Amino acid sequence: MQVRDSLLEGTKMSAKAEVHFIGTVLKGSEEQAEVRVFPEFCAGLKQITGFSHLIILYWMHLRDSKKERKTLLVFPRKHAINLETGVFACRSPSRPNPIGLCVVELLKVEECVLTVKGLDASEGSPIVDIKPYLPRADCIPDVRVPEWTTQGPTT
Amino acid sequence: MQVRDSLLEGTKMSAKAEVHFIGTVLKGSEEQAEVRVFPEFCAGLKQITGFSHLIILYWMHLRDSKKERKTLLVFPRKHAINLETGVFACRSPSRPNPIGLCVVELLKVEECVLTVKGLDASEGSPIVDIKPYLPRADCIPDVRVPEWTTQGPTT
Repeated sequence: MQVRDSLLEGTKMSAKAEVHFIGTVLKGSEEQAEVRVFPEFCAGLKQITGFSHLIILYWMHLRDSKKERKTLLVFPRKHAINLETGVFACRSPSRPNPIGLCVVELLKVEECVLTVKGLDASEGSPIVDIKPYLPRADCIPDVRVPEWTTQGPTT
Repeated sequence: MQVRDSLLEGTKMSAKAEVHFIGTVLKGSEEQAEVRVFPEFCAGLKQITGFSHLIILYWMHLRDSKKERKTLLVFPRKHAINLETGVFACRSPSRPNPIGLCVVELLKVEECVLTVKGLDASEGSPIVDIKPYLPRADCIPDVRVPEWTTQGPTT
């Protein structure tokens, strides 16, 4: 581990880490996508059918370039807005870490393949993590958002 | 990029990638935590005050070891359950990629420091990403979960 701002952080800390892909998007479709978990991680799916919804973190590999990862300001034009917006204030795929997040419905599990609805990932996108959707923690209906987020695509 | 299951995936794909930490948890407290975004990423916060809630992805650095990252099965004992559960079917901090996810309330932004409520991260945990919470995409109240998730801590 290397030192970074150790005075402020109080601990020695590396400025980066390694993610290990646990699977891949076999078929990319919002209506019905297929996620294949690599065999060596498949045991981690045990009991997953108890949940109707999951949070999928995936690697937006088409945006994994120096240029895209340096992007900090964008115009969310899909939402018809011309307001310069920080990447941490929108769901732009161009961001320092190209990690996409989707809440999906789990339709089917067959061996190591999950069929899900609502995954906005490209075919071939690596999967970083799968978490169960827990409404007590993850669902907050009464929040404040800017007007532009209520129009156009959901993310 | 290295080959991995290229026949199945149809594309050449590395099995890992690099995350660049964008900040750190200055003060870890569920009631009121402070997240410092490193100065070089601070521009990405533009317009963030339009949102009352954020999704924070952080690196659970205390679980970033070979052993913890090999863990695929756990017993969610905090939920008083003795059922062997896959790490992708619970929110265990031991998992192949130690990425934590919390929906937090944004209380205050001062320069590059966010004060938030509901962050279940340790002091010194690196921050991987910050995303606005969009209820149209992220809030699904009517889901099915196992009984044990309705008791104990929310995650």
